[in-house]
Amino acid sequence: MIAEFSIMPVGAGVSLSPFVAECLRIVRDSGLKHQLTPMGTVLEGDGDKVVATIMACHSQVLRMSDRVVTSIKIDDRRDRPADMERKVRSVEEKLGKN
Amino acid sequence: MIAEFSIMPVGAGVSLSPFVAECLRIVRDSGLKHQLTPMGTVLEGDGDKVVATIMACHSQVLRMSDRVVTSIKIDDRRDRPADMERKVRSVEEKLGKN
Amino acid sequence: MIAEFSIMPVGAGVSLSPFVAECLRIVRDSGLKHQLTPMGTVLEGDGDKVVATIMACHSQVLRMSDRVVTSIKIDDRRDRPADMERKVRSVEEKLGKN
Amino acid sequence: MIAEFSIMPVGAGVSLSPFVAECLRIVRDSGLKHQLTPMGTVLEGDGDKVVATIMACHSQVLRMSDRVVTSIKIDDRRDRPADMERKVRSVEEKLGKN
Repeated sequence: MIAEFSIMPVGAGVSLSPFVAECLRIVRDSGLKHQLTPMGTVLEGDGDKVVATIMACHSQVLRMSDRVVTSIKIDDRRDRPADMERKVRSVEEKLGKN
Repeated sequence: MIAEFSIMPVGAGVSLSPFVAECLRIVRDSGLKHQLTPMGTVLEGDGDKVVATIMACHSQVLRMSDRVVTSIKIDDRRDRPADMERKVRSVEEKLGKN
Repeated sequence: MIAEFSIMPVGAGVSLSPFVAECLRIVRDSGLKHQLTPMGTVLEGDGDKVVATIMACHSQVLRMSDRVVTSIKIDDRRDRPADMERKVRSVEEKLGKN
Repeated sequence: MIAEFSIMPVGAGVSLSPFVAECLRIVRDSGLKHQLTPMGTVLEGDGDKVVATIMACHSQVLRMSDRVVTSIKIDDRRDRPADMERKVRSVEEKLGKN
């Protein structure tokens, strides 16, 4: 499974980076492959572990803030293993050919 | 917790309603309060149960299709219980007053 | 086109309903068919008008807050006109038959 | 404005990379700063231009497929210019300090 998530504390000030940093610490401890992007964090790995890690981040931010809005997008396939680098490479190869 | 989700099978034809119906069956069996909207399904209840129900729907659609993209948005707060009807009513009251 | 959107001011307090109410006023003035859900607002109509209305809401909330995060999901099809009530009815009919 | 978007043709086969490549061509022609991630494309620049570029991609994929679902997330702020690299760096610096 590949999943991107972002967690927004509501009413906690304009700077979100302290909350993102807190989540990234949880993500690193999970051992899951991950990538920080300008708009979220992408995880790759076993589905249950990916979801549990995202929900651990959500709970942590909810400890730091009274209200939290979390967005998750999952890309899951049965026909072959998830591979977040391959997804990007596959597009770049198609662009290169044209 | 209140959460909205939508599940899209990739490459499974233009009509998505058979997949949505399959998920709504799982949602009804969960006993969670829910609302079907034109763009997704909204659930309200205990956080673990909400997430487990969404992931059960995701797994079911992945049994029917080789690839699935699932979007989830969670609104969670500590200061008072989640109430999806109150969220809508609260906006309508503010509109009525002006 | 059918589109759901939600607009979150960042760092503007825990209550979001004043901002949603402001947006709903803009949506009503647009004349577009719409539905307020617990997690967003659904619009139906001409694509350019739908996008312009959402961006007018976004700009209005950005006037009221230093930072805004806006989520939009569009469902667009060429084979028949968009119909947000039909989407819900179509699922309910499938459920009724089983 | 910083915005991430992803465009999914419905019923067009399991491989999405040809559609993403088509969009990335439009993005490159726009001259906007951009980054391809495993789950979407991030754009940075003038708000009107960012939205117009995303909608040009949406229209292009709708020419190639009967139905399209497009997700957009916008992060917009008045207090300083958008900077997608700074967002990532800001989190990494906070992690480094702890």
